[in-house]
Amino acid sequence: MKVDLNADVGESFGRYTLGMDDHLIPLLSSANIACGYHAGDPLVMEKTVKLCKNAGVALGVHPGFPDLQGFGRRNMDCTPKELKTMLLYQMGALEAFLHKDGLKLQHVKPHGALYNMAAKEEELAKAICDAVKEYDSSLIILAQASGKLYQLAEKMGIPVKAEVFMDRAYEEDGSLVNRRKPGAMITDEEEAIERVLSMVLEKKVRAITGKEIPIQADSICVHGDGEKALLFVEKLRKTLEKEGVTIEAFSR
Amino acid sequence: MKVDLNADVGESFGRYTLGMDDHLIPLLSSANIACGYHAGDPLVMEKTVKLCKNAGVALGVHPGFPDLQGFGRRNMDCTPKELKTMLLYQMGALEAFLHKDGLKLQHVKPHGALYNMAAKEEELAKAICDAVKEYDSSLIILAQASGKLYQLAEKMGIPVKAEVFMDRAYEEDGSLVNRRKPGAMITDEEEAIERVLSMVLEKKVRAITGKEIPIQADSICVHGDGEKALLFVEKLRKTLEKEGVTIEAFSR
Amino acid sequence: MKVDLNADVGESFGRYTLGMDDHLIPLLSSANIACGYHAGDPLVMEKTVKLCKNAGVALGVHPGFPDLQGFGRRNMDCTPKELKTMLLYQMGALEAFLHKDGLKLQHVKPHGALYNMAAKEEELAKAICDAVKEYDSSLIILAQASGKLYQLAEKMGIPVKAEVFMDRAYEEDGSLVNRRKPGAMITDEEEAIERVLSMVLEKKVRAITGKEIPIQADSICVHGDGEKALLFVEKLRKTLEKEGVTIEAFSR
Amino acid sequence: MKVDLNADVGESFGRYTLGMDDHLIPLLSSANIACGYHAGDPLVMEKTVKLCKNAGVALGVHPGFPDLQGFGRRNMDCTPKELKTMLLYQMGALEAFLHKDGLKLQHVKPHGALYNMAAKEEELAKAICDAVKEYDSSLIILAQASGKLYQLAEKMGIPVKAEVFMDRAYEEDGSLVNRRKPGAMITDEEEAIERVLSMVLEKKVRAITGKEIPIQADSICVHGDGEKALLFVEKLRKTLEKEGVTIEAFSR
Repeated sequence: MKVDLNADVGESFGRYTLGMDDHLIPLLSSANIACGYHAGDPLVMEKTVKLCKNAGVALGVHPGFPDLQGFGRRNMDCTPKELKTMLLYQMGALEAFLHKDGLKLQHVKPHGALYNMAAKEEELAKAICDAVKEYDSSLIILAQASGKLYQLAEKMGIPVKAEVFMDRAYEEDGSLVNRRKPGAMITDEEEAIERVLSMVLEKKVRAITGKEIPIQADSICVHGDGEKALLFVEKLRKTLEKEGVTIEAFSR
Repeated sequence: MKVDLNADVGESFGRYTLGMDDHLIPLLSSANIACGYHAGDPLVMEKTVKLCKNAGVALGVHPGFPDLQGFGRRNMDCTPKELKTMLLYQMGALEAFLHKDGLKLQHVKPHGALYNMAAKEEELAKAICDAVKEYDSSLIILAQASGKLYQLAEKMGIPVKAEVFMDRAYEEDGSLVNRRKPGAMITDEEEAIERVLSMVLEKKVRAITGKEIPIQADSICVHGDGEKALLFVEKLRKTLEKEGVTIEAFSR
Repeated sequence: MKVDLNADVGESFGRYTLGMDDHLIPLLSSANIACGYHAGDPLVMEKTVKLCKNAGVALGVHPGFPDLQGFGRRNMDCTPKELKTMLLYQMGALEAFLHKDGLKLQHVKPHGALYNMAAKEEELAKAICDAVKEYDSSLIILAQASGKLYQLAEKMGIPVKAEVFMDRAYEEDGSLVNRRKPGAMITDEEEAIERVLSMVLEKKVRAITGKEIPIQADSICVHGDGEKALLFVEKLRKTLEKEGVTIEAFSR
Repeated sequence: MKVDLNADVGESFGRYTLGMDDHLIPLLSSANIACGYHAGDPLVMEKTVKLCKNAGVALGVHPGFPDLQGFGRRNMDCTPKELKTMLLYQMGALEAFLHKDGLKLQHVKPHGALYNMAAKEEELAKAICDAVKEYDSSLIILAQASGKLYQLAEKMGIPVKAEVFMDRAYEEDGSLVNRRKPGAMITDEEEAIERVLSMVLEKKVRAITGKEIPIQADSICVHGDGEKALLFVEKLRKTLEKEGVTIEAFSR
């Protein structure tokens, strides 16, 4: 039994520090690195790649909309053509920092609003898949199994892995419950860990309606934006390992 | 006898069009492509790479300061560390658009204020050389032979080619006459062409003082920001070819 | 009989020139000046205010989304709170250039995607009205009479004027026909002028369905992005004047 | 005996939080508010103005270079004309958030690299004074008494107040000791407070050479980027008050 642990990292910018990357990264198996559009800058990218390298963590592109002010969380109505080129730009920019050590990118996970839009809009999912195919068709796309991006990548023959969230409730169709709905966030730690175990070991989870649904969990998305969050990730790691689950990146 | 003709291209941005790239590019042997910092955006980069590919023109990175408002022409006091990562970022971003066709970058030529600063400040020249070494040490640096960047690249074993300007006067030490000095710009077309021929064929040019100085001219920098400029480049090409000079990129 | 002629101006940015403002502005009665978010920069703003002042043209704020790359034409999912503050920011920034001459702003007209979204989404229309009320409740809002922004401004007691487009077809409800639909653009000059006369003199226009609909035309939006466009604006002015219509800003 | 306490505030941006403004602002008499160029965004500006209003703290513009990535700390070679318009833009943008409450700006203090450059380069100092005169000639400029900006403002008849730093050593000419020199920073709290008392009460300070020099201290610049810094400001306030010094903004 294996599972990947991923988190968004490298989101600092200039004078602004976000997250506790030096503590979080060693707890992950895969890292999604911001590329200067919604967060991150060249100095941060170089430092983040080095942290990942030192920790033996697999490197992923975390492209977003060109909206630093909105942290890539505001939907932007880009054309598929614009989007494809924005992704190429960000993938190349990040990979430049891997040359020195002969490292390779493992995966691509869209950020924020782009992640959500690509799960729903086929046209955008297509633009992302096109960018990956054009850039390097052996890159793995990381997405929710219930969304358009996952499904299209599979159809187009691009490697794709399914991501689950430990702190989010699910609808019966496997999509995330809208954050504004009551019960959307799983705030109890014990419950969150129990849900992760159920998703990883039994491939199912209880939807917000109470019904058990099947779910595919190749990777668990965690957060590291505070000491409490870090402690939780440590606890999750220990619990998984105790249950005999190996935490490991896809590429290994 | 061979010489390269280079120009800055891909400097449009979003709704803003600059230059006449579709007419200029076929007249060049090497193109310096903006990378989204001082000019250019992902859509423009993709289109420019395609124009170059169709015209068989060699592709170069044209990195600049992160200053779109100032078009990269304002000196910015970046640290060498910042600068090195900014260059990595821009080189990688551009190269992403070459993957589709299996193309490779030929050269790197810094833009505007960065070009001028790197000719004078060893620390910045070093940062650029470091970035190139780290990214791909077979990339050619394009710079003035009289400047720090050229000299340091040579010392560090990075391939480097010498660029001359047809529309600029030279000091006796081979540096460009400051634009604000009278006589800094060569405005007469016949004179400009004569000077280019002298630089390419005889490896010398008359400095602003009247003294003839030796000069190395591996590449001639031309402009294409208007119909008159385009006609001039055509005329220059014809004159060079008539004199038996082949116009050819370095990599060929 | 009076009507206002407005156009978007001050859309250049840094090294990039857009439009022919020095020729267009003297043909207008009101100018919508970009404020550095979707276009324009401080130097351009100063220059544009001066051109308007010299031509006796009324000054308007033309706020947009913070998206220079997309020229403010991409829908962005900003919260009303974000939007209100973005408008305050842009209104204040522009008005700073009027202090020297003791000038005052006349109107506010949202740009591009924001204009279109505010015609449809009450929440955004409200944010714009709130910003105007907070900044200076005597500012005139310029909007389509059929849209939410116009209607809400009226309800909130903010001065509001109705704008029509000479080059766009209308649906029966007075909204603009989507640009992607055939027939959306009026390309024939004679037809365009005829339609303007009908809108101004008879307060009606033929909708794309063929049916005549009532329309309110306090201001006509024109363009100046080329010599042909300028000639057309001149022709429109002459025709209106011949028909006894005075071209005049609202504030006079 | 009176003195002003000022600090840079409103430097958060989008998702990024900087400083502890809600705790720091009530300890100040004057606040320097970032305006979206080197830091700050419209939402942050609105919030910061409100904090200042609630605490009865005087409002100042804190304009910087258009360099968010460098936090306005990198010298940028802007022309005086560019600089003047950048200042107008930022002053107007900030003042827009004061309209609602009928508040007025008290002062202007340039940020970071601009502050340092304006102390040395007369041309830039002139551009800042020109902007203030054009915008509102009753605004107070806050600068070091030993620098060009202070001196020129005085000559041009613009109100100007002298700022001192509690954590920086001084050269004999009253300029700041370069941060890279040993002894440039005063790190001992007791020493810092003693120096402030000497500057405020006796109008003199011991230069790094050991010599006592005269100094003018209308305002003390403090920082609030951590709990320790906040505690220190509280201690400084108490000490000043115990010595009979009233902490008060200039405008009162």
